This record gives sequence, C-alpha cells and structure tokens, in this order.
Amino acid sequence: MAAVKACNILITGANRGLGLEMVRQLVEVPCSNRQIFACCRDPDSPKSNDLRELAKKHPGVIKNIQLDVTDEKSVKEAAKNVGPLLGKAGLNLLVNNAGMAILGDSQTSTTEDMLTTFNTNAIGSFIVTKEFMPYLRTAAKASGTPGMSCNKAAIINVSTIVASMACVHEIYTMIQAFPYNVSKAALNMMTVLTAIDCKPEEILVMALHPGWVKTDMGGDQAQIDVQESVGGMLRVMSGLTEKQHGAYMDYTGKTLPW
Amino acid sequence: MAAVKACNILITGANRGLGLEMVRQLVEVPCSNRQIFACCRDPDSPKSNDLRELAKKHPGVIKNIQLDVTDEKSVKEAAKNVGPLLGKAGLNLLVNNAGMAILGDSQTSTTEDMLTTFNTNAIGSFIVTKEFMPYLRTAAKASGTPGMSCNKAAIINVSTIVASMACVHEIYTMIQAFPYNVSKAALNMMTVLTAIDCKPEEILVMALHPGWVKTDMGGDQAQIDVQESVGGMLRVMSGLTEKQHGAYMDYTGKTLPW
Repeated sequence: MAAVKACNILITGANRGLGLEMVRQLVEVPCSNRQIFACCRDPDSPKSNDLRELAKKHPGVIKNIQLDVTDEKSVKEAAKNVGPLLGKAGLNLLVNNAGMAILGDSQTSTTEDMLTTFNTNAIGSFIVTKEFMPYLRTAAKASGTPGMSCNKAAIINVSTIVASMACVHEIYTMIQAFPYNVSKAALNMMTVLTAIDCKPEEILVMALHPGWVKTDMGGDQAQIDVQESVGGMLRVMSGLTEKQHGAYMDYTGKTLPW
Repeated sequence: MAAVKACNILITGANRGLGLEMVRQLVEVPCSNRQIFACCRDPDSPKSNDLRELAKKHPGVIKNIQLDVTDEKSVKEAAKNVGPLLGKAGLNLLVNNAGMAILGDSQTSTTEDMLTTFNTNAIGSFIVTKEFMPYLRTAAKASGTPGMSCNKAAIINVSTIVASMACVHEIYTMIQAFPYNVSKAALNMMTVLTAIDCKPEEILVMALHPGWVKTDMGGDQAQIDVQESVGGMLRVMSGLTEKQHGAYMDYTGKTLPW
C-alpha cells in the first residue's frame, strides 16, 4: 500500500477525531527519523488522554504540542518550539485539521456564530500556514528533488464537501450549518490562493474532504468511520504530485467541483 | 430597455462608486411610489456630498439612511427607521453593495486584514440581509404573483469574479487581494445558502459581479466605467426570475463558475 513517507509532520486538532486517527495510522508506517507533531489546544486536559497514551507508546516519534489555532501568540510559540526539532529537514507535511462546526441557517445563526467558526476554520489555518511556512520552505529546498509531494513539502487543508457551492444544496437541506459552510468556503479560497503563492517554491497545497465521518462533529448519522476516512485521506495524500496542486478532492481521490 | 421596476429599494454603500451610480440610474426610471433608501456609514460627511446633492434633486424618492454594515446596532436602527416608510409594500429589492478591499498575499496579509474584510464584505451583508428579511417577506407576500423577480422581493449580493475558485488564478497573479477574495468567496457561499433558505418564500437571492470597474476600489487600470457596470447590472437584475435564483452572474448576464 502507498504510504505517506514524510519525515516531519505537523497535525492540528490531533487530540481526537480525524486528527488523532491520523496520528495513529501514521505512527504505524515504518519510517526512519519520523517526528509527528501532534498539536492541540490543551495537551494536558482529560480531552487529550488518548493522544497522551498514544504518545507514551511511541516516545521520540509523537510530540504533543500546545497550539490553539484561534490564538496567534500560541501558534507563534508552537512554531518557535517546533522549529529547532525540525532542524535542517524542515517541515514536510502540515495538516490543517483543527476545526469546529456551529449549526444554524441564514436567519438563526448569529454574528458570533459566524465569527467563531471563521476564526477557527479559516483564520486558524491561515495563521498556522503562515507561521510554519519558513519550515515548509526549508523542507522544499532540502529535498533536492523537483516536483511536489507530501513527502517533500505540503499543506493539506481539511475541507468538506459542504464548502462546495456546487455540492452543498442536497446536504444543506438536511443539515443547516451556515456558519460552518461559509467558513470552509473561505478556507477553500485560501487553499486556491496559497497554492498560487507557493507554486514557485514547490510546496504542494490542496483541500481534502474527509467524507462524512462518525466523529463528535460528524455525529452518528455519518456514513463512514474515522478509520476509513483517514485511511483514504492518507492514501490520497501519498499519491499527490504537482498535478494535484491547488486541487479539491475527497478521501477516495475524487476531484470535487468548487 | 428593460428596467428594474421595484417600488422600495435599499442599497448599502450608496454614497460613492457603484452604489451611488445605482441610485443615479434607478432614480431616472419613471416609477410611481418609488423609494430608494440610500444607505451609507456617514450620510453627513463630505464623502457623502454627491449623494446628498442627488437626494436634494429627488425629494421624496431618495432617502439617505445611516447604516454601517460592520455595526449590528446601526443596521438594527436603520431597519427600525426604514420599516414604517416601507409600509404594507415591504422591501422589494435589497442590494448588498457596501464592501472594501485590502491587498496582500497569503504571507503578507495580517489576521486583522482578514477579519476587517470578512466583517465588512461577508458579515456585513449577512447582518443587513437578516435585519431586512422581515420586510422582504412582507413584499413577497404582498405581491400576489407567483415566481421570483427583483420587482417582487430580491436580495442582490454584489460579488466579484475573484470570489470564483475557478476564475481567480489569472487575476490573482496580477493583483493579490487575498483577504478580499476570501471574504467574497464566503459571501458567495452565503448567497447559495440564503437562496436555499429563501426559496419557499419566493425571495430571489443571487450574486452579481459588477465587472472590473474604475472606482476608488477598482483603480485606474480597470476595464469599464461605473456607468457601464451599473447599466449592465440593472439590465441583468430586471430580467431575473426564479431560474436565476441562487445564481452567480456578471454584469453582462453571463453565468460564472464557482
């Protein structure tokens, strides 16, 4: 099976759901010198018990990092702490996974709902990308090979199919998540523009829809379990090249319309 | 020539650029009982001289209203003041035109740049739409005719081609307006979702790209003048039916890809 061979990986929102499962699956792949920076808001809280347990089993590979995507200072601090651990290899793979959802339609959602989700899902990924960009550049330069891949230097923005203006209709009639959908559409535009900005430096940027997953956020009605979603996402990520730069795909590898 | 025959019209950002020109062209169309609520942040400041002059020439038709889209209280206050003037006819046409642009790419833009543009361009339209929705509902019910049109009840969100993930590439390589593009992509998603929410009540909702216009925002390099842009937009608006509900079009009537 194809596998993500990136050496240094950073994942936000890694204490549960998709983020935690991604750490779990990545740590099983034999890969020398791998470091997984598993970031979350409260690494010491009970909410991060599973991540701490997992890290204990893989000392030296999984590093728990305090990082609150809604707090610029916290992101800068995390970048300062992680930098020296990355060394000359830089950061190969950044997964902007941290996110949250608020339900409501265009009339019931409040301005606060809109700002909270935009801050976490869009601005959060924006800040993390910005602060870790120097290390992604280091990785791109250090690789010595042309082209793009998740093993060289890549930013994966965890998006959603309901960020697609073309696809959102059917799902919105079942689940009104106006603030969430709007924030993720903003994230998709960030993905497209960041891809343009990063092209000369050969840092791959794309948006990935994990499917509708049985997590705290996805709920029980969801279609697939977290193992299937993350397994699919990692398979897609392992195959990405410059051809998928700026793309919007789902966990099965299908390209989604904007 | 086809013309917008809406009785009660409200336009945000009406003191200059596209908004002012829209008031100018609308006031020339013979239409009995027309009221144009020309909203801007500072109706008494020198920046609103042209609008005040225009209103003086058309007393009883143009009403200057204080409305700052970034201030929820101000929007609520404006809705409270405009409501009684609308009466049983309600509000037929809301044009969410107020907007602003900040330049920068994914690395040079600041969090503040992102929030400021999102607040004005996305949240601003969201709040105005929400607060004036009761009057749009009144107009939809009062019309007594089936279907949708700008003369019955409609929300036009002034969007931009650079809100399109499919079209943004070429322009972004010339003009990096990362915060602006992201906020307008969010506005496009709001348009799509608000259209779904408003369908049962037959309130038309769509996004309209004015072209690249020679205004303070568009700059001197722009392709068309404000008269051509607004003339085109009003022509498009006059022809809208339920078939264009939720659409994304430009001032020539062309449908744009998301």
